[in-house]
Amino acid sequence: MLVDDAPGKPCPAARRNIGIVISTRVRLARNLAGRKFPTHPDGSDRLEILSDIKRVVGTLPGGDAFAWRNIDEESPLECRLLVERHLISRELAEGSGPRAVALNPERSLGMMINEEDHLRLQCLMPGLALHEAYARTDRLDNQLSERLEFAFDPFYGYLTSCPTNVGTGLRVSAMLHLPALAMTRHIEKVYRAIIEMRMAVRGFYGEGTEAYGELYQISNQATCGKNEADIIDDMDAAIAAIVRYEERARARLAASERRQLEDRIWRSWGALRHARLMNTEEAMRHLSSLRMGLAMGLFTDIRPSELDRLFLYSQPAHLQRLEGRELEPGDRDAARAALFRKSLGGEMN
Amino acid sequence: MLVDDAPGKPCPAARRNIGIVISTRVRLARNLAGRKFPTHPDGSDRLEILSDIKRVVGTLPGGDAFAWRNIDEESPLECRLLVERHLISRELAEGSGPRAVALNPERSLGMMINEEDHLRLQCLMPGLALHEAYARTDRLDNQLSERLEFAFDPFYGYLTSCPTNVGTGLRVSAMLHLPALAMTRHIEKVYRAIIEMRMAVRGFYGEGTEAYGELYQISNQATCGKNEADIIDDMDAAIAAIVRYEERARARLAASERRQLEDRIWRSWGALRHARLMNTEEAMRHLSSLRMGLAMGLFTDIRPSELDRLFLYSQPAHLQRLEGRELEPGDRDAARAALFRKSLGGEMN
Repeated sequence: MLVDDAPGKPCPAARRNIGIVISTRVRLARNLAGRKFPTHPDGSDRLEILSDIKRVVGTLPGGDAFAWRNIDEESPLECRLLVERHLISRELAEGSGPRAVALNPERSLGMMINEEDHLRLQCLMPGLALHEAYARTDRLDNQLSERLEFAFDPFYGYLTSCPTNVGTGLRVSAMLHLPALAMTRHIEKVYRAIIEMRMAVRGFYGEGTEAYGELYQISNQATCGKNEADIIDDMDAAIAAIVRYEERARARLAASERRQLEDRIWRSWGALRHARLMNTEEAMRHLSSLRMGLAMGLFTDIRPSELDRLFLYSQPAHLQRLEGRELEPGDRDAARAALFRKSLGGEMN
Repeated sequence: MLVDDAPGKPCPAARRNIGIVISTRVRLARNLAGRKFPTHPDGSDRLEILSDIKRVVGTLPGGDAFAWRNIDEESPLECRLLVERHLISRELAEGSGPRAVALNPERSLGMMINEEDHLRLQCLMPGLALHEAYARTDRLDNQLSERLEFAFDPFYGYLTSCPTNVGTGLRVSAMLHLPALAMTRHIEKVYRAIIEMRMAVRGFYGEGTEAYGELYQISNQATCGKNEADIIDDMDAAIAAIVRYEERARARLAASERRQLEDRIWRSWGALRHARLMNTEEAMRHLSSLRMGLAMGLFTDIRPSELDRLFLYSQPAHLQRLEGRELEPGDRDAARAALFRKSLGGEMN
């Protein structure tokens, strides 16, 4: 079992605080020189690439601490668990052929092999920690580049399978909890500002997903024409601005619509404690209310760690693992509601 | 204070059971011969008519037990309380000039003076009791007609201010709780069938109101061309058919969508226990869920009498009386939510 809850192995995504910036992610896309990209129809290189990288990682200082999993040998449920923890991408989970993930013991640092590129280095940290996350990814990248030749062009920079990653190969993102901007509809202004800054906004599960639970993933679009430090600094400034904007929206709501805010929070509490059927989207919305309530000091009936646990374990794959079996969507909604009732002290009749 | 909660004076509308037929109402429209209708612009007759009827009622056996209230002397809040208990009509409450209501000690039998007609006799009983309610109204009508000359035409029957009441002057209605027909959308078929039978369907507060709380008032349209016994029998048969239809819809829901049904009931319970703001319409919808849950044996966490009490006391005027002051709509929604929380054991933070 790759994903577990042993106290020694906290999942970074689960160590969320109740602040506005839930987590930070930095990833670097790299490819081995002279090899076909994993997206090439002739996949003959993939197994060799995987074993080459694995061998090299083993020679790094502390490299043997990485736990390797061949994704093509994992069950679909296990893959979905990893996706729900943001440890691997949906693309890696749903891909085919030899592909793998390596994770450090804290699961904050990882490598995906044969996703869209040969190698994707990733660092995931709770809260806002762009510089630290980049520094850790960069250190691993440097160690690897001493032992592997990466596809690099003096003019374009790092070469990648998709042109949108060419250059630095750097994608920096932060998961932001923006309920007040969503409630006041100012989120649309934020969307426009982000796009003007050549950044992207996505939902909880990345590209093409909805902003369930009022969680927004902000990331840089441009990977070339700017160096890594500038990308990080620009993102840091943008996130700081959005955080201030959300804080102001919360303060305004607390001053002018406190009753409506409390109503929303307590209704979510009531629904979580009493519903008999609840889908993921609704669950995330209610948990978002409680998170906002906690952050604003309007609600204290749940511990932040419990909120994080419920957030993670109400996701479809986690829920099925908890139940110990595959569940149809209807049964999943019933199991999710039962999890909340049991955890939050609602009636069990 | 006309409306009170002394144990000796239960309000018929509050003695509701959890069956499908909540209450039965029978009313007779009568006018004094040779007098102008109350709707006539020259209102000079109205005071005289009121005192004539009052004097005659006093001479009836048991007639001095009727409590009289001059509606033109009552506060708007008091009038609305009477409307919410279905003891007077909105028309009487909102009218002008000398007008009154007389109610027997149990408030099951009443007379409205100078509403649309000089005299409207009304009997309101819990559950389905058309024959009994008509018999009681008819007895009072007979006693009065021995002492007062009613406007009557050998061909048309009783003459009334509005032509729709000419003939028997009889309007028979029942308040039905039809959540399963509403949920399965079969209510529209019921609407069509009722209209074909020359009956009318209205919402909780009568003509032109919405069917809040899935409560539907069914009444006869035709007051002439049929005698009283036929009107009562036809209405009785129609109500019995609708009740069977609702029962079948409930049984089907319980068999095929039990989880959805339970989810609805428990979510209503959660909302009532935890919301901070709730308008009348939403409150009636949730109380409707609990009523259905009780009736179907799916929910036992509330006593029927408590459900009836909350139904009545969450109405705007009752709520304001409970709070002891006039409330703006926003404050009313907060007071209503607080009433539910306090009564149902939700958190009070």
